[in-house]
Amino acid sequence: MTTKAEQRRADLREKLVNAAEARIRDAGVTSLRARDLAKDAGCAVGAIYNAFDDMTALVMAVNGRTFQRLGAEVEAAVAASQCAAASERLIRMSEAYLDFASANNRLWSALFDLELPADGAVPDWYRTALDRLFQHIAGPVAELFPDQPRAEQALTVRALFSSVHGIVLLGLENRISGVPPHEIRRMIALVLSRLTVR
Amino acid sequence: MTTKAEQRRADLREKLVNAAEARIRDAGVTSLRARDLAKDAGCAVGAIYNAFDDMTALVMAVNGRTFQRLGAEVEAAVAASQCAAASERLIRMSEAYLDFASANNRLWSALFDLELPADGAVPDWYRTALDRLFQHIAGPVAELFPDQPRAEQALTVRALFSSVHGIVLLGLENRISGVPPHEIRRMIALVLSRLTVR
Repeated sequence: MTTKAEQRRADLREKLVNAAEARIRDAGVTSLRARDLAKDAGCAVGAIYNAFDDMTALVMAVNGRTFQRLGAEVEAAVAASQCAAASERLIRMSEAYLDFASANNRLWSALFDLELPADGAVPDWYRTALDRLFQHIAGPVAELFPDQPRAEQALTVRALFSSVHGIVLLGLENRISGVPPHEIRRMIALVLSRLTVR
Repeated sequence: MTTKAEQRRADLREKLVNAAEARIRDAGVTSLRARDLAKDAGCAVGAIYNAFDDMTALVMAVNGRTFQRLGAEVEAAVAASQCAAASERLIRMSEAYLDFASANNRLWSALFDLELPADGAVPDWYRTALDRLFQHIAGPVAELFPDQPRAEQALTVRALFSSVHGIVLLGLENRISGVPPHEIRRMIALVLSRLTVR
């Protein structure tokens, strides 16, 4: 049974995650200040640290939501293209990834920018969410390269994801190689169509 | 002629860049504090802002050095492999990129992590350094795809660089897909050998 104190804590966590999500969306993860979040959630600054171990834990909770939304978009792309050829399915998934990153740029960046503690502990749900994303890529890869040993297929999945991630990341950044969205799509198609030639 | 005041300012800039470089190397760009740097350089905190417009300008000066060192490593790899086939040269360059990123991880990250002002002004030397890096990739790409129109070749250069960058970035990060260095090399070879099949 949930006690009243537990319920209050859960409500405060929810309010804080909402507030942090809105602020990351508007100004990026580096802009987060405990004072602002306390004001947004109508609590004392100290109360944040009763609800979450630290600010990193709060950002990780936002990242959890972002990862779920990203996963849902990629899954929708998979579902919508299940009759297409394997390489085409990979391209559609990658475009869904690009669209999500583009529409939710700062929330998506926070998935990668958050500095984790030096002990490198990555929460289980984070690994699970990533594994699900990789599973979607693994399907078409296994179809395309049925003769590759499993370890080689796993490496191919990582290489494909990393390549698309790099194209999306640098493509959306003005600094390095910012290019118009249709050129990002062309780069994705260029790389994936070549990488997936049997 | 350089006045004494100008010389003093140049000396202080040099000291501050050295101090910032050492601190970024040890603890990353987010750890930089004006107070610490003033102590390192033996100046008042206010003096930093006489030598540089702001902390971003100081970090950009460190990034300029890092970019030069990175460029020199890639150029050495180009020089050492000039008789090799085009795709092999791309792989050697990418390995030099990986080695540099691995040995100078936080300085290399600062090239990409530094948030620039919203007006998006990127210093000319930054674009120049990047263009030089892209030129090294453009040589083998032009050899491999002589019939591609120039615009298509330029897109291929960006796509190759972005893919290798993504593999290095995520490969070196424990969080997402941290893998042993030899597996990062295998992913680079896998992607580049497939991408450069004529």
